[in-house]
Amino acid sequence: MATKRIGKQTVKLQNPPNIIATACIVGPKEGEGPLRLYFDEIIDDELFGEKTWEKAESKLMRETFAKVLKKANKTAEDIDYIIAGDLLNQCLAANFGLRESEVPFLGVYGACSTMAESMSIGSMLVDGNFADNVVCLTSSHFCSAEKQFRFPLELGTQRPPTAQWTVTGSGGVVISNKGNGPYITHITTGKIVDMGIKDVNNMGAAMAPAAMDTIVSHFMDTGFTPEDYDLIVTGDLGAVGKEICDELTREQGYNISKVYNDCGLMIYDRQKQDTHAGGSGCGCSATVFAGFIYKKLMERVINKVLFIATGALLSTTSSQQGESIPCIAHAVSISNTIS
Amino acid sequence: MATKRIGKQTVKLQNPPNIIATACIVGPKEGEGPLRLYFDEIIDDELFGEKTWEKAESKLMRETFAKVLKKANKTAEDIDYIIAGDLLNQCLAANFGLRESEVPFLGVYGACSTMAESMSIGSMLVDGNFADNVVCLTSSHFCSAEKQFRFPLELGTQRPPTAQWTVTGSGGVVISNKGNGPYITHITTGKIVDMGIKDVNNMGAAMAPAAMDTIVSHFMDTGFTPEDYDLIVTGDLGAVGKEICDELTREQGYNISKVYNDCGLMIYDRQKQDTHAGGSGCGCSATVFAGFIYKKLMERVINKVLFIATGALLSTTSSQQGESIPCIAHAVSISNTIS
Repeated sequence: MATKRIGKQTVKLQNPPNIIATACIVGPKEGEGPLRLYFDEIIDDELFGEKTWEKAESKLMRETFAKVLKKANKTAEDIDYIIAGDLLNQCLAANFGLRESEVPFLGVYGACSTMAESMSIGSMLVDGNFADNVVCLTSSHFCSAEKQFRFPLELGTQRPPTAQWTVTGSGGVVISNKGNGPYITHITTGKIVDMGIKDVNNMGAAMAPAAMDTIVSHFMDTGFTPEDYDLIVTGDLGAVGKEICDELTREQGYNISKVYNDCGLMIYDRQKQDTHAGGSGCGCSATVFAGFIYKKLMERVINKVLFIATGALLSTTSSQQGESIPCIAHAVSISNTIS
Repeated sequence: MATKRIGKQTVKLQNPPNIIATACIVGPKEGEGPLRLYFDEIIDDELFGEKTWEKAESKLMRETFAKVLKKANKTAEDIDYIIAGDLLNQCLAANFGLRESEVPFLGVYGACSTMAESMSIGSMLVDGNFADNVVCLTSSHFCSAEKQFRFPLELGTQRPPTAQWTVTGSGGVVISNKGNGPYITHITTGKIVDMGIKDVNNMGAAMAPAAMDTIVSHFMDTGFTPEDYDLIVTGDLGAVGKEICDELTREQGYNISKVYNDCGLMIYDRQKQDTHAGGSGCGCSATVFAGFIYKKLMERVINKVLFIATGALLSTTSSQQGESIPCIAHAVSISNTIS
């Protein structure tokens, strides 16, 4: 059989898999934001009835998995693979949240690019006849992320305007070989890009070149143009990163401004909610996709989306050792029709 | 096209991909062990010319990538995906070690099951015509792992007899759609199994039920028996875990004893090298596979191997919060002939 690769980084799926259901659960702050009506569930407090933030994040993942199965009218028995990961050390949220699932499990780590990475692998496994149904999941939690990556919350550390707010939330999708769309038609897998930025309070700027690299590669590999899309949406570049990405992409000959948005800007009202440059975390793009974008696709308000989740692949150890921030972005092209 | 799934957890590859090259670099202690003649390179000191253990581990990954490309007579341009991960928080070794590779990158986290997980995904991407050539890589480092998971080395903490010794080393393979074998014919993807064990100094015992679960699923799904294999090899159960796995598997009706070994037992002379229950870490199964097992396949000393890498999906946070240890094992069936 002929290769499904087009260009250097892109795969054109032969039998584009369907996204048959999505689900998402978010925290109280996300539940006060402009997308509140699109989320399946808004939890009352960050602990979600658990004793620790990490256990709360695991529970977010577990409940989102249960919810997406129910919405897809499937049981765990029907699922061939779970593909999941998160930001916590050793992917604690996914590994503990999904340990009772009884489903073959592939753990991934792509920082905040995880949703697009898992959907990329998932759609290849379905298209390649290795699976009938795959669940892709991720999560993040403001408190567990602050505790792990930054400062104790109790310290009340002031944040610079370029800082972003980690989304508390989990989002998941079921990708299936049967259905009526929306279809995953192409995936463009990112390379690691490190432009030497070291400011951990400006991850949007660090990630923007990786996002641009993947977006431009997608256009070059597929022959698509920005006009082919109703929405081009990055994961969590926030206000600073989005502007840089927009400009860098334009410098490469592709003007995406008219259809370009960023999940980190969509999830909060930045002025009223004091979230500085916007949202971030694996759960940001996951819940905005599962909650808002998927519903707009189903309503046919939009028909073709390029979803680019973006990840900063740093750790506290690497930053303490003076390292810059390697970044990555993966793109998934989703359409209501198969071209 | 028909599904490639057989049974609940196994995929039979339609055009079994080839492992066209392997490479591995190990630390000084591993270089004094019984497999020393099989490793491509033995480094003189754990720092490998770097200032920190984490940078040394990243360098192990980078140099192993360069070496495996060279041995496969390929350049980075020929590689469609790198699939890699490691034990460090946020997969530091892979993300920093491979950031200059310029190859589409899929990060995975499966703790010490990473080598089999990455080979599973890699072989599906090749078999499914999504890639011509994929590199799968992982690493671990005794010092960076001790520092992150256990105690400062300077403390000289005494270790119980059930404890294992994290291998310093990196192993990688090139999986290709062209070649003359050895072939990856089947993969069996594990589920997360948590039997409630909490002793972080006895990970072999924690992982054994997951290994058994995947081995038994493999036999049930494929119809193979232990007699079909020249070698059934788990990743890093060590002395305690190997015995448990052997017994649990026998209880399920499969006697693997005659052909069963464990990479953690193969890599060190446990008596002379004071490594207690044996080796562990992502690098354990990766270097034993890349160094020893692959060469024995190429020499036709053995012709059919079931390689089961095993992972303990804990973190220091989860253990501090009183959690048990969820585990996973992924199996890759490799043969010199296509059945």
